[in-house]
Amino acid sequence: MPEYTFLDLVNAKRLGHAHTGDEIDFIVKSVMNGSVDDCVVTAWLMAACCNGMTVEETTALTAGMAHSGTVLDFKNETRPVVDKHSTGGVGDKTTLVLVPLLAACGAMVPKLSGRALEHTGGTLDKLEAIPDFTSELSMDRFVAQVREIGAAIASPTADLAPADAKLYSLRNRTGTVDSVHIGTGSVMCKKIAGGASFILLDVKCGNGAFMQTKKRAREIATMMIAVGRALERKTKAVITNMDQPLGNAVGNALEVAEAIEVLSGGGPADLKELCLVLGALTLISTNLARGEHDARQKLGEALKSGAALTKFRQMVVAQGGDPRVIDNPSLLPQAAYRSIIRLPNPRGQWWVKTIDAKEIGLIAKQLAAQSGSEHASAGVVLHAKVGKRLREGDKLATIYGACAEDCESKAARLLQAFHFSEWTVRKPRLVLDVVE
Amino acid sequence: MPEYTFLDLVNAKRLGHAHTGDEIDFIVKSVMNGSVDDCVVTAWLMAACCNGMTVEETTALTAGMAHSGTVLDFKNETRPVVDKHSTGGVGDKTTLVLVPLLAACGAMVPKLSGRALEHTGGTLDKLEAIPDFTSELSMDRFVAQVREIGAAIASPTADLAPADAKLYSLRNRTGTVDSVHIGTGSVMCKKIAGGASFILLDVKCGNGAFMQTKKRAREIATMMIAVGRALERKTKAVITNMDQPLGNAVGNALEVAEAIEVLSGGGPADLKELCLVLGALTLISTNLARGEHDARQKLGEALKSGAALTKFRQMVVAQGGDPRVIDNPSLLPQAAYRSIIRLPNPRGQWWVKTIDAKEIGLIAKQLAAQSGSEHASAGVVLHAKVGKRLREGDKLATIYGACAEDCESKAARLLQAFHFSEWTVRKPRLVLDVVE
Repeated sequence: MPEYTFLDLVNAKRLGHAHTGDEIDFIVKSVMNGSVDDCVVTAWLMAACCNGMTVEETTALTAGMAHSGTVLDFKNETRPVVDKHSTGGVGDKTTLVLVPLLAACGAMVPKLSGRALEHTGGTLDKLEAIPDFTSELSMDRFVAQVREIGAAIASPTADLAPADAKLYSLRNRTGTVDSVHIGTGSVMCKKIAGGASFILLDVKCGNGAFMQTKKRAREIATMMIAVGRALERKTKAVITNMDQPLGNAVGNALEVAEAIEVLSGGGPADLKELCLVLGALTLISTNLARGEHDARQKLGEALKSGAALTKFRQMVVAQGGDPRVIDNPSLLPQAAYRSIIRLPNPRGQWWVKTIDAKEIGLIAKQLAAQSGSEHASAGVVLHAKVGKRLREGDKLATIYGACAEDCESKAARLLQAFHFSEWTVRKPRLVLDVVE
Repeated sequence: MPEYTFLDLVNAKRLGHAHTGDEIDFIVKSVMNGSVDDCVVTAWLMAACCNGMTVEETTALTAGMAHSGTVLDFKNETRPVVDKHSTGGVGDKTTLVLVPLLAACGAMVPKLSGRALEHTGGTLDKLEAIPDFTSELSMDRFVAQVREIGAAIASPTADLAPADAKLYSLRNRTGTVDSVHIGTGSVMCKKIAGGASFILLDVKCGNGAFMQTKKRAREIATMMIAVGRALERKTKAVITNMDQPLGNAVGNALEVAEAIEVLSGGGPADLKELCLVLGALTLISTNLARGEHDARQKLGEALKSGAALTKFRQMVVAQGGDPRVIDNPSLLPQAAYRSIIRLPNPRGQWWVKTIDAKEIGLIAKQLAAQSGSEHASAGVVLHAKVGKRLREGDKLATIYGACAEDCESKAARLLQAFHFSEWTVRKPRLVLDVVE
């Protein structure tokens, strides 16, 4: 029995003191065994939000939560075990591309993903647009699939980092989500429990991300890397621009179709480039490639040869989905109505100056939720991104909805999410920083 | 309906933003009508502890809590209505002296007091050592008694500042008590609801107080004064030394006996002096005296003439207590056993250097709680205070307990609460600062 109570630790954190590793373990154990009132745990959470935690405390919290349940083990594998995490953005379907692409290049990618949160989509929601695809795998089946084909994307089961699940639910209802330290613990504990030996973090930054500023994105990237290294996992982070949606498609089925395009060697330039940047960094870091040139060549070959698409197909089949959508995306859910938005500005030429990513995300979400049920087919496809030159009447975007009213009611809002300039606008930088 | 939710306000306070008066009102109302989960309220409390509040926020919180229930009204009175508050210390029985003393000098003193907290005693617990004395008055009876004899000391009823009671209970179990701002609100809302026009604050500072440093004491005194003035109550504060117990007696019945001594013109010098300082400040501030000299003369006369003791007697009678204890303190509960502690140091002369007030308070509390029930008779009486010169075998203190073992078991601890010097030690300053 420790000489302190949970309340002593609340008081210490209120005063800004750092906990020892044993004290953090005591906190995680108390949360797990339910010996402490939720209000007292909330008091600690808020004190930690306000006064922060050291790298050592965050590391102990991460390890404690990771070991509060099952920890997956790929230790007898010679292939590197890779996990990739995005902090969330609008139109971010890189996971759908990268998991099969990296598997095709020799990595094992056991990817435990999440659901849609606020204005951002969820990888599992997107994949479930594929008829009969299931994200709910037992951890045994998940591990077996990864060993067999190198790739799986599923929902974490209840016995994976359960302390984090308990704390997250409390954080979510008490306004204590926004903490670099507890947030780092929450992300990293699932990577540790998921068995990764290399962790790649895509920290999104900008209007459509949860981190609005580069400073804040850098702060969380640095903390995650420090914790990953302290727990002996090779960890790297890329800070990427989320001021406009990534790629063109926003919406579950639309994004699956776009991911398939990229896996087939096509797709929007920005999405493809980000997949190559993240992929190359992974291949180099795990010694699957000798350098940038070699890595890009291997990735390009996997796309060109169809190897990446084959991995995707194997994964879809293994998880019960209909693989015919891969060759015929029209078998994905199709929206009943669509409406094209065009540039209304008269005379001369215009450039797209900004596209409000968060607003596009919210519009897509509302389209999907309308008419009383979830429509995987709904969403928005952009035909013009920032920096594109346009003339009157050129297409800006297409709205996909369950009925004509849904589409029409969003048209004005969608148009207002675009801002134009009479002068040339340069394409924005996609990769803002690499943090190692 | 406001445009924000309680959770929005939690997030704002987490980020260190200040609330508007309307937002604070919304918080108080939400606490009162139970529309918000205790965990969410706790999150707000901790954010306010960590990030603080402005004077305007603290004032709004004080007013909101004061008006969450009954507000006493002495408006048609010509006598000034005085409230005195001590932040709590060991051996602090000034309220027992000051309430009748100020009433004898022409003030009305409706005093709503509290119970023992941690190592400090409670005014109500002390008074209830008088046989049959009751602290539980209806607010109508309380007001009537104050109008009639000028003095009453009672427990606040449940309809007095109920929002504070709700918040305090939550703060107490979640480690969110220690906040200058919410603490100020908690004290001042009861003064406002109690109907005072002049508020005198005795902010204790030192080892036996809740504020350990003068800086912290000054901080809370300044905030209380700012809030009092913003709510149009004349407010003054005195910061006083609580590094050793006040007076000689620590323990409920022992302290009543000592208060009666002071009201009879005798008593320990430090206790008497503090009563005169606080009393003079009150009489001057309420225009009951023209200056320090006049005030001291009036207070001295009230003690010498027996007028103050008469007020005390009237108050005891009005609240059902046995007034015979006033002339014959041996009618107060008497401890079955007592044990005298003497200076063990051999040869030469010694000076008392420090007396650990908190430890004395804890010893007295444990003596009272021993043998399975509360013993109002138990406690400690000091025979030597800081600065006193002693020789081997001189008396330091007497322990009063329910049985011989209780007394003996505390003897060594009590002795260790004293520290001695071979060199002269000056008497410590009692009044450290007056904040106006």
